Amino acid sequence: MPVLVVGSVALDSVETPFGKASDVLGGSAMYFSASASLLAPVQVVGVVGSDYPVEQLEPLRERDVDFAGLEHAEGASFRWRGRYRHDLNTAETLETHLGVFSQFRPKIPDAFRSAPFVFLGNIDPRLQLDVLRQVDRPKLVACDTMNFWIESRRPDILELLGHVDLITLNDAEARQLSEHNNLLKAARWILSRGPKHVIIKKGEHGAFMFTERTVFFAPAYPLEDVFDPTGAGDSFAGGFMGYLARTGDLSEPNLRRAVVYGSAMGSFAVERFSIERLLVLDHPQLRARVAEFRRLVAFEEELDA
Amino acid sequence: MPVLVVGSVALDSVETPFGKASDVLGGSAMYFSASASLLAPVQVVGVVGSDYPVEQLEPLRERDVDFAGLEHAEGASFRWRGRYRHDLNTAETLETHLGVFSQFRPKIPDAFRSAPFVFLGNIDPRLQLDVLRQVDRPKLVACDTMNFWIESRRPDILELLGHVDLITLNDAEARQLSEHNNLLKAARWILSRGPKHVIIKKGEHGAFMFTERTVFFAPAYPLEDVFDPTGAGDSFAGGFMGYLARTGDLSEPNLRRAVVYGSAMGSFAVERFSIERLLVLDHPQLRARVAEFRRLVAFEEELDA
Repeated sequence: MPVLVVGSVALDSVETPFGKASDVLGGSAMYFSASASLLAPVQVVGVVGSDYPVEQLEPLRERDVDFAGLEHAEGASFRWRGRYRHDLNTAETLETHLGVFSQFRPKIPDAFRSAPFVFLGNIDPRLQLDVLRQVDRPKLVACDTMNFWIESRRPDILELLGHVDLITLNDAEARQLSEHNNLLKAARWILSRGPKHVIIKKGEHGAFMFTERTVFFAPAYPLEDVFDPTGAGDSFAGGFMGYLARTGDLSEPNLRRAVVYGSAMGSFAVERFSIERLLVLDHPQLRARVAEFRRLVAFEEELDA
Repeated sequence: MPVLVVGSVALDSVETPFGKASDVLGGSAMYFSASASLLAPVQVVGVVGSDYPVEQLEPLRERDVDFAGLEHAEGASFRWRGRYRHDLNTAETLETHLGVFSQFRPKIPDAFRSAPFVFLGNIDPRLQLDVLRQVDRPKLVACDTMNFWIESRRPDILELLGHVDLITLNDAEARQLSEHNNLLKAARWILSRGPKHVIIKKGEHGAFMFTERTVFFAPAYPLEDVFDPTGAGDSFAGGFMGYLARTGDLSEPNLRRAVVYGSAMGSFAVERFSIERLLVLDHPQLRARVAEFRRLVAFEEELDA
């Protein structure tokens, strides 16, 4: 089953302790697509400027990513320039040029309106709500957000929460949104606003999935070399949604597996710049890493008498 | 089988957003004992001053904690006063009075010298080495340490690493000791210095156990109310060593279980001040929490064809 993603399509310039990359494919929709497309067909809605290197999308097209919803606007593409210092935990934004993205109004092509899985990448919650008005009752709608919108568009985010099945956000954002410092309380607060599932991402410390009655935790895969952390969260979302779209199964055990597939995708994404690693990833490698996640946390109970 | 612990015995005064406690039982050896004694007999080596409320040790004595190695010195007991702010992650030390602890030279009673499990709590590594000269080839020796010793006693810690089977330390300490920012690299560096197992504790983000060929991760139990984080690490160590001493089994699967028992103990310790929660903990509660740890991370692999 296809998964529809609406989000940013950018050109990133990134500096890490290990190297530099200039004007490489980036943005939430791009990382999501590169990740999800290993598991399911992907439909992209976004906008690029007249300077965007469209020929670089070819490898994704070959993987069943449909760019019919990628608007080509007059002007400059969204560009982000950032740097990671030695600890690799926080990106330092050096420049942001929104370009054509500042006027982005998502238009869902007719052929995409019945997508059973919808991921609303991190954009203005008013636009996220607008997308939901353009689609036919999907099987599952998930959204992402960020501190900027929580601060500036709180009422819209609260409205959005009433219309999504799942939200992914990081721990700082969950605390900011809920005004609870404790993550369990933060998750309960968010669940009470509508979503049936809340995924709280803690970067190198793993991810929680909360439902009303259950808590699931997947660690981050301990990598010896993190090359470029950009896009880990969107690659996580792509793996998660891609796995759900592939299986069409929304049971708790399957959602847990989806979180692990998401974590695995995030761990691959950071091994190289941009979507490079995801583009050469294959199923045996993915399965092997999922198996490693299992070994990482595996233990048998049993206390002696 | 008994487990021997050498460490600090203190009187703590703690302030958290939820309340205050004055001159309550604290110190690494005390948290360790309260935790381990639910699983195995414990032998304590430490020092207290003439002002120490010895009668408060009675509940531990009843749980098979042997204080024959607790020296009673003339002078004031070790006192620590600290505060936790709203995020509860880092203790702010307001006062430290070492008292009789500043002259502490561990003397292992004859009856303790054959203890099969030995835990060297966080004290001067020269004293930790001195303890090892006083015991007969234990089945397993583990040690803890801290930033202060890594900075001021580096050669002694490196020597110590050649004489212990396992070390527990937190992520910042592992980075400081190894001079590697990446935890996997830090763990490999430490393993190359002697210990067969390295446990890296990440507080609310869980704990890793590394061996030459394996990595195990146990999350921290997501608690809705963390009351007082003091002693979580030593309670972890007590649960870990207590479980090993109880089972006498040093296989990888059993070490993994021991990490989970340690994590469970740490999660109980923070529910109240001092060792209060540990003293009223029983086996069914402990088993139930270990089962919850399992549910927290449980997932089944299987990628469809």
